[in-house]
Amino acid sequence: MIIVMTRAATRKEVENVERRLKQLGFDAHPIQGVERIVIGAVGGKKISFPTGLETLPGVERVVPIMAPYKLVSRESRGSDSIIAVGGVSIGGPQLAIMAGPCAVESREQLLTVARQVKAAGAQILRGGAFKPRTSPYSFRGLEKEGLEILAEAREETGLLIVTEVLNPNEVELVAQYADIIQVGARNMQNFALLREVGQSGKPVLLKRGLAATVEEWLMAAEYILLEKNYQVILCERGIRTFESATRNTLDISAIPMLKQLTHLPVVADPCHSSGNWRLAMPLSMAAIAAGADGLLIEVHPKPAEALCDGPQSLTPASFRELMEGVRRVAAAVGRVLPSCPENHPLVGRR
Amino acid sequence: MIIVMTRAATRKEVENVERRLKQLGFDAHPIQGVERIVIGAVGGKKISFPTGLETLPGVERVVPIMAPYKLVSRESRGSDSIIAVGGVSIGGPQLAIMAGPCAVESREQLLTVARQVKAAGAQILRGGAFKPRTSPYSFRGLEKEGLEILAEAREETGLLIVTEVLNPNEVELVAQYADIIQVGARNMQNFALLREVGQSGKPVLLKRGLAATVEEWLMAAEYILLEKNYQVILCERGIRTFESATRNTLDISAIPMLKQLTHLPVVADPCHSSGNWRLAMPLSMAAIAAGADGLLIEVHPKPAEALCDGPQSLTPASFRELMEGVRRVAAAVGRVLPSCPENHPLVGRR
Amino acid sequence: MIIVMTRAATRKEVENVERRLKQLGFDAHPIQGVERIVIGAVGGKKISFPTGLETLPGVERVVPIMAPYKLVSRESRGSDSIIAVGGVSIGGPQLAIMAGPCAVESREQLLTVARQVKAAGAQILRGGAFKPRTSPYSFRGLEKEGLEILAEAREETGLLIVTEVLNPNEVELVAQYADIIQVGARNMQNFALLREVGQSGKPVLLKRGLAATVEEWLMAAEYILLEKNYQVILCERGIRTFESATRNTLDISAIPMLKQLTHLPVVADPCHSSGNWRLAMPLSMAAIAAGADGLLIEVHPKPAEALCDGPQSLTPASFRELMEGVRRVAAAVGRVLPSCPENHPLVGRR
Amino acid sequence: MIIVMTRAATRKEVENVERRLKQLGFDAHPIQGVERIVIGAVGGKKISFPTGLETLPGVERVVPIMAPYKLVSRESRGSDSIIAVGGVSIGGPQLAIMAGPCAVESREQLLTVARQVKAAGAQILRGGAFKPRTSPYSFRGLEKEGLEILAEAREETGLLIVTEVLNPNEVELVAQYADIIQVGARNMQNFALLREVGQSGKPVLLKRGLAATVEEWLMAAEYILLEKNYQVILCERGIRTFESATRNTLDISAIPMLKQLTHLPVVADPCHSSGNWRLAMPLSMAAIAAGADGLLIEVHPKPAEALCDGPQSLTPASFRELMEGVRRVAAAVGRVLPSCPENHPLVGRR
Repeated sequence: MIIVMTRAATRKEVENVERRLKQLGFDAHPIQGVERIVIGAVGGKKISFPTGLETLPGVERVVPIMAPYKLVSRESRGSDSIIAVGGVSIGGPQLAIMAGPCAVESREQLLTVARQVKAAGAQILRGGAFKPRTSPYSFRGLEKEGLEILAEAREETGLLIVTEVLNPNEVELVAQYADIIQVGARNMQNFALLREVGQSGKPVLLKRGLAATVEEWLMAAEYILLEKNYQVILCERGIRTFESATRNTLDISAIPMLKQLTHLPVVADPCHSSGNWRLAMPLSMAAIAAGADGLLIEVHPKPAEALCDGPQSLTPASFRELMEGVRRVAAAVGRVLPSCPENHPLVGRR
Repeated sequence: MIIVMTRAATRKEVENVERRLKQLGFDAHPIQGVERIVIGAVGGKKISFPTGLETLPGVERVVPIMAPYKLVSRESRGSDSIIAVGGVSIGGPQLAIMAGPCAVESREQLLTVARQVKAAGAQILRGGAFKPRTSPYSFRGLEKEGLEILAEAREETGLLIVTEVLNPNEVELVAQYADIIQVGARNMQNFALLREVGQSGKPVLLKRGLAATVEEWLMAAEYILLEKNYQVILCERGIRTFESATRNTLDISAIPMLKQLTHLPVVADPCHSSGNWRLAMPLSMAAIAAGADGLLIEVHPKPAEALCDGPQSLTPASFRELMEGVRRVAAAVGRVLPSCPENHPLVGRR
Repeated sequence: MIIVMTRAATRKEVENVERRLKQLGFDAHPIQGVERIVIGAVGGKKISFPTGLETLPGVERVVPIMAPYKLVSRESRGSDSIIAVGGVSIGGPQLAIMAGPCAVESREQLLTVARQVKAAGAQILRGGAFKPRTSPYSFRGLEKEGLEILAEAREETGLLIVTEVLNPNEVELVAQYADIIQVGARNMQNFALLREVGQSGKPVLLKRGLAATVEEWLMAAEYILLEKNYQVILCERGIRTFESATRNTLDISAIPMLKQLTHLPVVADPCHSSGNWRLAMPLSMAAIAAGADGLLIEVHPKPAEALCDGPQSLTPASFRELMEGVRRVAAAVGRVLPSCPENHPLVGRR
Repeated sequence: MIIVMTRAATRKEVENVERRLKQLGFDAHPIQGVERIVIGAVGGKKISFPTGLETLPGVERVVPIMAPYKLVSRESRGSDSIIAVGGVSIGGPQLAIMAGPCAVESREQLLTVARQVKAAGAQILRGGAFKPRTSPYSFRGLEKEGLEILAEAREETGLLIVTEVLNPNEVELVAQYADIIQVGARNMQNFALLREVGQSGKPVLLKRGLAATVEEWLMAAEYILLEKNYQVILCERGIRTFESATRNTLDISAIPMLKQLTHLPVVADPCHSSGNWRLAMPLSMAAIAAGADGLLIEVHPKPAEALCDGPQSLTPASFRELMEGVRRVAAAVGRVLPSCPENHPLVGRR
């Protein structure tokens, strides 16, 4: 930590800061510059805590040196974390493809789409049973019934299940059905929920908050790791900016930046970020080219009749096309997609 | 709702949209323009629901006409809502001043500051017992003990209590102590929490999310009103922008804009928005000049030793000065501050 | 400047940085922390220049300590700059009110509105002769003819003239007519233009760029001061954010923040920032309450027929009402408005 | 254009709007909804112009239907524009690679890097002779001498030259040397400059403004096309957001979105957008995967000694590695890179 004093700071104010640093367990190393003094503070036990130093007279600002997170950092673990769940490894050479509808709407809808995404090469089925909706008048999901339909789809297809939980109370229930528990963008800083999913022991897909910095996102992941649950997958899903041509702005730069900062795997959601299914294929290819470990894709048998997020859902046919494009880009960056199930009646469109 | 067709849309595509509108309960009114057709959709029962029309062939975009909220809208209630709680009216001519520390740290800290803010003219004491913290290594509050200290401060000073709740499970507990329940910025779209505080029957202070649009904020309030709890106070606390000279950007324009859109009272939090106590006084005066119904101010007896948000906390002396400035501006815009308790030993600094 | 080395930096890399610092004229003060070394660099002649240190092996980041501007800073001049122009002082106790149409459209339009804003108490007439327009199909101004009409209005009313210049070539022409030259938001970093207006010797109204940080804005002002033109007035006019309920977001916090950082006067433009004349009055009062030294207001005799920015223009009647509100708030913060001309036929509406 | 009336609009107000529409040359088509009237306006000659309708009593808002640009739109030209310049085609199957230093610093620096980027496969040399600098204390370029050095490098290597112009006065000079004239982000809405480069007849590389929407960017391009210069290349270079882990946020979604909206070619600048050379390679590959027609890359022989933008410059070795990655991704999306010159001493590193 560096404490920058104002130009007008008095000797007494400097000494006061030094005294406070000592109380806090730091050694103070003042450097007399041409115009002002800066004080390097060395030592101290905790990663990050409020020191109040900014409020002392004569202090202009405090510059932290250490990252405010620890367990998630690349410095704490040099090699990539690979999350192994039900035969799928997330973060290794093989890409993880999670696909399915925004919401589970009915048994028929989900089983249909599950078979279709399986045939196209996905390993994981997504689908919301509990839906966070901006408007209280929107469809909020089938809840427990939705979870049961997801489990049935897993039974039939062998796909793993990723589904969202909204309420700390419901983590236990969701964990009984899901292979991976999703924490949505709006709940990235729902700390009670982060602790519960941490304690569930299940792998967690942690979406980035709409206006969360990379640093805040990593601190949210740190909450989960602190519960001794190291199986966290980060999901870039677009941030909020002034641009309105797309719903959100996919922060593609965050993907390689995260690879420098953390050992956790990173996947991308190109549907939510754009709000436009026509952009899903180029953005999926871009995310893989940038180093993403997988994708989260919305697929609906009839997007025009979806109860949720139709405009950004792909048809099964578009999803197959997307997978072909992703397969080619994956090869260009040394990654692989799982091979499609052979002889499946839905395979072989081209 | 207006459906804008692409220039290349065929007659068949237009008819398909008209058919779908009819299924959804709308009357279709096509208008043939120079270059394209737009279709006005009249009727329909619900306020807002996904129609899937954007995904139909030939549709370029869908323009909603009606606001997506209803109970909170100025159209549903022309006169201002005034929230009466324990003798204080929020939303009327008298301004509501909520002041106190970021977090309840100890009995002594809270009682000291409670007496001081009371003496300076505040009617409501703020203080967090459950603290949402970006870092898992930060102080998270005294929890139940903090609530008890708040209750004791109310007992002694007669101040009302506003305090935050984080977890739907804890709403019942917090409601036993609080006069007003606060939903923080990070939880503005924690829908389970919104429903619980709605059902608690207590007045709710709903902070704006860091990247929430005014429309999303009003829809979050709508969640609470739908539970038949009409006592919602909106709190503008700054939004996230590219500017880093201040921690957040106080969206002063949102205050008069909300006065047009909704009947609910609006208060401002100039401390969180700036992250800088030196800006609290000018921003408080600005918020009142712009039409705010009250303020939420951080006051700490010793900001340099605060366990939370010291840099943006005022000392009791600065708070008194702020109140004097606010009193003058309030008069300029036809509002009043409560008069300070007479003969109080802390009064009379100037 | 502080150079933060990576945790893994070798002794050789540290020495290399120290050697480079010496070459650049700095003294190096290394501090050995628990986990890494940081190096304080003291000395060096220039305010800011690229050192390339970030690119050296083992360097994690470089933290600048000194502000990147000098002449505009509060440290270089403790007392407020007051810009005196034609009998009006900008930055002193009296507020400066600049009002008029977005664009000069005709002699009649301008003279009419000039008399009206004069009657309501403005001292300075605004009006664009050269208009920057997002669309090439929009009205771009009357150019030289517009300047002549402005001069005529000055002649008749005694108002000073502020008008925008777009092209370095046209600075000389505009300077012949204008009392204050405006540099618009889109040109805040048009450095050729900044140098020309600097050399013109005329007072400059420098609008903040739509996405300019406070620091970048001050550096743009520094360009003008470096040409020995110290008469710069900063104009906050809203920044671009995700919020779409208002056209831009008036950054009210920037006003008191600038008062800490610079000695230059600051005015606010509440019309461009909101794009909505209904918000102009509350935002004007808020800006004055926050410490602004004046206002820039769009007034048009018939907003519905304006060739430019009608929706955000006030009618003369609304402007008079605004002035009355501002007068009351000004008194509350120890500022004054010029008194209205007596016996003027347009005065006395209430 | 759709005019949405308020719920409370009177019959007289509706008729007034209809009358005004007629005056403006539109046919009015009112649609009576359940709660309010909306009026469809058909006809009208111009693409976009201020109608003032928003300011009429009873009008809530005006929804434009037509895009505000015409010549640049995909609707005006269905097939992709291919800009042919000196044997290089930009916008066709072959990618255009523009590489070189931020600024021309010396003859030796530029010739060295020119040979190196040529050897790695670039067709176009970038290098600034006139530099826009946020700080007036930074290096502003060698100006005319820089242009001469660029011309010499072209002579020797056969690379085309792209270089920036800042001032309308200097367009003629720059056009004598450059093959492609660059308009920088800060000048995207410098309309005088846009007109001059339009009239120069030279191909123009138009960078996106830091806070420019896609729509504003296309309107800036429209300015150039209106001068009958159809050779415009759009360059996505990152937008300004709240995220500070990267300098700007590369808006990867804008690339496929532009491909839907316009026929103009689009290239990406991954160096400026990230401010971090370590991200240049993954972001370059992502941009090509998303459909970009080329790249603009900063390469400096010794980034640590660069007078400008060192931290985001690649070394020649890193650039060769980047080109190899891009070549593989290009193949995956059906694009090609030019083959490297054979037998070049710098070729064959791997």
